[in-house]
Amino acid sequence: MPAYRIEIRVVPRRGILDPQGKAVADALHSLGFPEVTDVRVGRHVVVETRAASADEAQRRAAEMCERLLANPVTEDFEIEQVVEIAAVSAAAHG
Amino acid sequence: MPAYRIEIRVVPRRGILDPQGKAVADALHSLGFPEVTDVRVGRHVVVETRAASADEAQRRAAEMCERLLANPVTEDFEIEQVVEIAAVSAAAHG
Repeated sequence: MPAYRIEIRVVPRRGILDPQGKAVADALHSLGFPEVTDVRVGRHVVVETRAASADEAQRRAAEMCERLLANPVTEDFEIEQVVEIAAVSAAAHG
Repeated sequence: MPAYRIEIRVVPRRGILDPQGKAVADALHSLGFPEVTDVRVGRHVVVETRAASADEAQRRAAEMCERLLANPVTEDFEIEQVVEIAAVSAAAHG
């Protein structure tokens, strides 16, 4: 079964308070970046998995987001890309 | 000065132990996703800022990553995109 690398972005929803983003914005101001007007901090999750096809990998990744990776109340997720890595993986793992 | 939204991805370097990724992989296995072979968890940072040009915004964002957003020993960063949002921002803020 082919292997895929899936890149997933999970970010706080607009309008949801993001204290980590606020802290980063304040730190950037202190470090000499006064032009920054807003920062939001989410997660970037890289999942390597096996699936029958890229479509199947993407469908399963959406399920993973709904079940575990994203908080449906406060976060939005986006599956940024699904890349087949079977050849790379076979070479890397022998 | 135009406003830009910059999307930045910060991920643990390959070969660096990623306990959070390991915990997520274990949880996915328990939740019925045995096909997952590896997970790495990084950050997705969205910075809204003002700059003279998209190139200038990108250059400043790289400085922010080097100074604060990424740990140069354990993490890689990538500036995924720089999008002008001046019109949107003006409409949204008044």
